[in-house]
Amino acid sequence: MMKQMNKKNPILSLRHGDRVALISHVNPDGDSLGSIMALGLSLEKVCGHVDILVNDDIPERYKFLPGINSAQLYNAESGLLYDYCFVLDCGDETRLGYSKKLLEQSRTVVNIDHHISNNMFGHINIIDSKASSTCEMVFGLIKDSFFMDDVDIATCLYTGISTDTGNFVYDNTSAKTHKIAAKLLKVGIDIQDISEHLYQSRSLKSVKFLGHVLNNLQTSHDGKVVTISIPRALRVEFEVSEDEVEGVINYARDIKGVEVAILIKELEADKVKLGFRSKKDVDVSKLALEFGGGGHKKASGATLYKSLDEAIIILDEKLSTYIGW
Amino acid sequence: MMKQMNKKNPILSLRHGDRVALISHVNPDGDSLGSIMALGLSLEKVCGHVDILVNDDIPERYKFLPGINSAQLYNAESGLLYDYCFVLDCGDETRLGYSKKLLEQSRTVVNIDHHISNNMFGHINIIDSKASSTCEMVFGLIKDSFFMDDVDIATCLYTGISTDTGNFVYDNTSAKTHKIAAKLLKVGIDIQDISEHLYQSRSLKSVKFLGHVLNNLQTSHDGKVVTISIPRALRVEFEVSEDEVEGVINYARDIKGVEVAILIKELEADKVKLGFRSKKDVDVSKLALEFGGGGHKKASGATLYKSLDEAIIILDEKLSTYIGW
Repeated sequence: MMKQMNKKNPILSLRHGDRVALISHVNPDGDSLGSIMALGLSLEKVCGHVDILVNDDIPERYKFLPGINSAQLYNAESGLLYDYCFVLDCGDETRLGYSKKLLEQSRTVVNIDHHISNNMFGHINIIDSKASSTCEMVFGLIKDSFFMDDVDIATCLYTGISTDTGNFVYDNTSAKTHKIAAKLLKVGIDIQDISEHLYQSRSLKSVKFLGHVLNNLQTSHDGKVVTISIPRALRVEFEVSEDEVEGVINYARDIKGVEVAILIKELEADKVKLGFRSKKDVDVSKLALEFGGGGHKKASGATLYKSLDEAIIILDEKLSTYIGW
Repeated sequence: MMKQMNKKNPILSLRHGDRVALISHVNPDGDSLGSIMALGLSLEKVCGHVDILVNDDIPERYKFLPGINSAQLYNAESGLLYDYCFVLDCGDETRLGYSKKLLEQSRTVVNIDHHISNNMFGHINIIDSKASSTCEMVFGLIKDSFFMDDVDIATCLYTGISTDTGNFVYDNTSAKTHKIAAKLLKVGIDIQDISEHLYQSRSLKSVKFLGHVLNNLQTSHDGKVVTISIPRALRVEFEVSEDEVEGVINYARDIKGVEVAILIKELEADKVKLGFRSKKDVDVSKLALEFGGGGHKKASGATLYKSLDEAIIILDEKLSTYIGW
């Protein structure tokens, strides 16, 4: 039987000794890690101990997050049972990867997310598609608590908000987002230090890789489309992470006149990963769907079982017929 | 005789029909243009008409600013007299270039600035070195006025705040800065559109130039120093603006482990412009001073009458003796 909970803010129902787990999606980003750490550190103060679980290794740039060393890789064999499992920043169970099993090991699943596509897989679902980030939502849940003056928690929240809004640039940034940032700064976070970790810590090789890629990018369709194709050998040569490879698409999108940026990343001889970014009106989620992929209006992706060269030709044709360019 | 003015907020002393000019510094940036436009549009509502004056052509990326077409190049021969001249974002009179003459044509000079080095050249000096930007100060002066719900004015203010804080990243960003951004968003500014103009409108050639430069940058002193040297021919080949050339230094500074980034731009055969950026502790204003230049702790510059190759050698020696690397 589920204990009677405050469904708007289940955190208020927690008590010392409750067994609590927190988990986020595979390929963790700043908002997923920021939100599980911020909520994890908060609930620790209430419950005494919580298990913060992840599916993958923590990407280098997020290793500065306070408390991140206490996050553990989920062990499906542990058989541990939980009173509450908080799932953060996760639109559906499949994005939990192998730690999906945790949902069966938990009496109450609390699903906290800002994706409009969330499929309400929790016992309690707190979904706000207008929030810039899950961290913005976590702020709302803990803002009146005694631990809101904790710099570590504030640092985690700021990280998620900053990364999910492209540092206050994307149109999910609202007046509320800035108000929250103001409050986090008042708590005493060091934005200089956070920004250095998030945005000023590319390796020399990765910057040279970026240079090589930008110097060689191709435009088509009257400059409205820019395509970057990255052979496997290039990634090996420059020793760049997946994160860094995929980040270059934003530089391409930001070129004047470009409406769609495409990244074609060679995975194997006949397998490529496609990434799409749109600057304004083109809905690239539909474009990705044409290749069996998906995503958002302005950012989407798909996998294609073709060679790099074949993929370029197919994409060119698809753009001509699909968007009419 | 100067009319008795409200020295904390001289705007409150202005009346319809007062003859008002606004001016900013040479080589205008986002904060100088944002602040003269925001204050200019505001005072227009009070005085009926104002003259918004600039020294140089408006850089392409700022041409979207509302009302910017009404800004005129200062004409020293005009001989016009003003009751008030508002000088914005300008640390001393020399930065006014040839429009310094305007100060003599004005009964009351109001100096509004956030540079700590401001030399108080006005009759009224409103200086706040804690403000992120002059736009943040202009917001403070007009926030209680009836025109604060004007989207055009808010757009100009946001532009200055965003560009002077590196879009809320630099350590001049405070809780107040974010609170103001929240208020400007509430007025209804379109940050998507503003950001597109400011940050997503590089030309294809300029992006390829950036790529070329990053792919070829050199590190020294155990990776703590990164140097970019840009021959004149390269700028001509890629047709890049000065603005775009000088912007590449930030990418160099953001590399992991780099403490000082140096840009050496060839102006003529034996004349180079040096730019310095520091990430943390090194005070590059002192380094610039060694070459007869100056600036801030984290951003400075100088001119050197040497060839590109000679400049590289001299810099290397100076770094070894001066910083001890």
